[in-house]
Amino acid sequence: MNIIPSARPIIRFAKGRSRRFRAGHPWVFSNEIEMSPELKTLPAGTLVTLMDAGDEKLGVASFNPHSLICARVLSRHWTDVIDAGFIAGRLRAALALRDSLFPMPHYRLIHSEADNLPGLIVDRYGDVVVLQVNTAGMEALIPTVLEALTEVLAPRAVVLKNDSPVRGLEGLPLEHKLALGVLDGPVELIENGARFVADLTDGQKTGWFYDQRDNRAFVAGLAAGKRMLDVYTYAGGFAVQAALAGAVEVVAVDRSEHSLALADKAAELNSVTINTVRAEAFAEMTRLAAAGERFGVVVVDPPAFVKSRKDVGAGAKGYRKMTRLAAPLVEAGGFLLCASCSHHMPAELFAEEIAHGLGQAGRSGRILRIAGASADHPLHPQLPESAYLKALILQLD
Amino acid sequence: MNIIPSARPIIRFAKGRSRRFRAGHPWVFSNEIEMSPELKTLPAGTLVTLMDAGDEKLGVASFNPHSLICARVLSRHWTDVIDAGFIAGRLRAALALRDSLFPMPHYRLIHSEADNLPGLIVDRYGDVVVLQVNTAGMEALIPTVLEALTEVLAPRAVVLKNDSPVRGLEGLPLEHKLALGVLDGPVELIENGARFVADLTDGQKTGWFYDQRDNRAFVAGLAAGKRMLDVYTYAGGFAVQAALAGAVEVVAVDRSEHSLALADKAAELNSVTINTVRAEAFAEMTRLAAAGERFGVVVVDPPAFVKSRKDVGAGAKGYRKMTRLAAPLVEAGGFLLCASCSHHMPAELFAEEIAHGLGQAGRSGRILRIAGASADHPLHPQLPESAYLKALILQLD
Repeated sequence: MNIIPSARPIIRFAKGRSRRFRAGHPWVFSNEIEMSPELKTLPAGTLVTLMDAGDEKLGVASFNPHSLICARVLSRHWTDVIDAGFIAGRLRAALALRDSLFPMPHYRLIHSEADNLPGLIVDRYGDVVVLQVNTAGMEALIPTVLEALTEVLAPRAVVLKNDSPVRGLEGLPLEHKLALGVLDGPVELIENGARFVADLTDGQKTGWFYDQRDNRAFVAGLAAGKRMLDVYTYAGGFAVQAALAGAVEVVAVDRSEHSLALADKAAELNSVTINTVRAEAFAEMTRLAAAGERFGVVVVDPPAFVKSRKDVGAGAKGYRKMTRLAAPLVEAGGFLLCASCSHHMPAELFAEEIAHGLGQAGRSGRILRIAGASADHPLHPQLPESAYLKALILQLD
Repeated sequence: MNIIPSARPIIRFAKGRSRRFRAGHPWVFSNEIEMSPELKTLPAGTLVTLMDAGDEKLGVASFNPHSLICARVLSRHWTDVIDAGFIAGRLRAALALRDSLFPMPHYRLIHSEADNLPGLIVDRYGDVVVLQVNTAGMEALIPTVLEALTEVLAPRAVVLKNDSPVRGLEGLPLEHKLALGVLDGPVELIENGARFVADLTDGQKTGWFYDQRDNRAFVAGLAAGKRMLDVYTYAGGFAVQAALAGAVEVVAVDRSEHSLALADKAAELNSVTINTVRAEAFAEMTRLAAAGERFGVVVVDPPAFVKSRKDVGAGAKGYRKMTRLAAPLVEAGGFLLCASCSHHMPAELFAEEIAHGLGQAGRSGRILRIAGASADHPLHPQLPESAYLKALILQLD
């Protein structure tokens, strides 16, 4: 890495094209700069200084000549040196925010652009952290990030969970490895007062979905005295919190035996009982409805149905069907949570499909809450489209 | 009122035009029915039976021949008699939901279509309730609603606060009167554990804005140890809850002496200190910035800037300016809540204007929370556009 600001290559905005960046947008698009053959040869992830057509230096960014988003700003002070001290400063700011929001050190610590570290996701489980690196620029900074993490958090272990398909767009390989320290099994976390285990070796994504924290608390608040069904339970997040809040019976469905083992372990840690059922979600909802089963609370929080823009149509139909199958399982006056973590699924369309699915099921009701991810997954004000999580909580008549 | 189902006039859908209604939409539009000269003479608010082109009876609705929304469904069982018993059933269902959500009987009890009572708003302050009636159909049912309220809640007083300009569209006059019982001054309410007073005689709207309940709790959670500024404080909702949560100093701004008296009274009831300042919001924010004042938490929750669709452009500029004036008052790492209760202001545009205003103020940061109204203001699944409240909570760098 070049670390001396004056030694960095210069990326110059085309005349009049710096307006969006100056207004606060964290990205520079390839059609906004003066591209040249030399710039095209720069390795993806090179640190560059951004310069206006009028020679004013506007900041430091990581550059990828092969990407439509060709530069992502790291700092608007071009003289900043992007070293471990710089990254540590960003980590400390993010840490102060999370520690003011949550009682336990279990949260998403860094959420990419919104925490001024584009391309970096950091989830924290006390003294174990999981990184997900999604851009060439951040890939080049991994050693610096590890140094900064050691300085700020002195973690016992750091896991690199670089298995997101978006890495392909940046020309990065998939990988999953221990980057620092020793990991001797699943880790524990506490969310809304309940204990859980996350498997950072074989689990999904970064091991736990902190984004549903507030929605789990809201649902738990509705569950006392009710039968509760948690479809796609994964590690038991909604199910165990509902049981702990006094649900009289909890059924947790997942097709993965490994996930259900995590859910069972969480139930045991919290001294509650849940019934784990290994099954495909749609088939199990159909079976339960045919058997006349009804629940006071039903949660359906599937993996992304829409993986890319071209899947929106098919994915939308999936959410509609999911709602149509879930609605009959909700008793009169009961509650239904439908979620989508599909980045490419627009919030309005998701709400429409839910209304459509309810109509097909012949059920009416009301939306009590429309929520995105919890506050440890903040949004950059100029990137509202990065809000991927959508959850609707309804009461049905 | 005609109350015998078989004696009601029939409104017949045009062939193939009942699809939206059958899918669950609560409104019938004038271009979806077979209008006739006789129907045009029906008094606004007449109860009618909805019938398909194929003679199938689809429900009972209130009809207004002079409105684009010509019928609003009350029940999809056409044999239902719309009497006090029917309304009492709706009230009991809404009551059960609210009592499962909130520890105190202080909330919006009925939120129009979402609670299956189109055109009716009921806010509850223990044994005092305030009604707002916004359609001719519900206007005709006021005596029935009062009878049902008496049956279900036996309120000490019922206030009719019919001063919404939307009544004009339904040909209804503005009025504000005591419909039942005796009211001998402001009423008390408890929200998130804090005590407040609502003036149902001279206050704004229905006296208190329960819709911000969750946002006030979230902001209070950020306020401990910080200076807090509450612009457009009205009766002190955000200010007093922040003070109670441990804000070291609270400044509450409003242009109305009457509102500030309510805020002062609330501070006194909770044994906290707030500094009330009578001033115009924009002028006071400008003055505070010039004086170098900084706060750890700033809340700006104005009355609607956008009163009609044609005001969107001007209103949007207002929200941008509001953000530009508020941002300089937020200390580094501090928090800013910007809200809009303008029905006609699209959520995406509101978020854009906030980003724009931040850019103009030269401030960066992150959106921690995007929230609508609390769960006692539910949405009909087919009327997502009725979500009027938009609040963004940001942390600024």
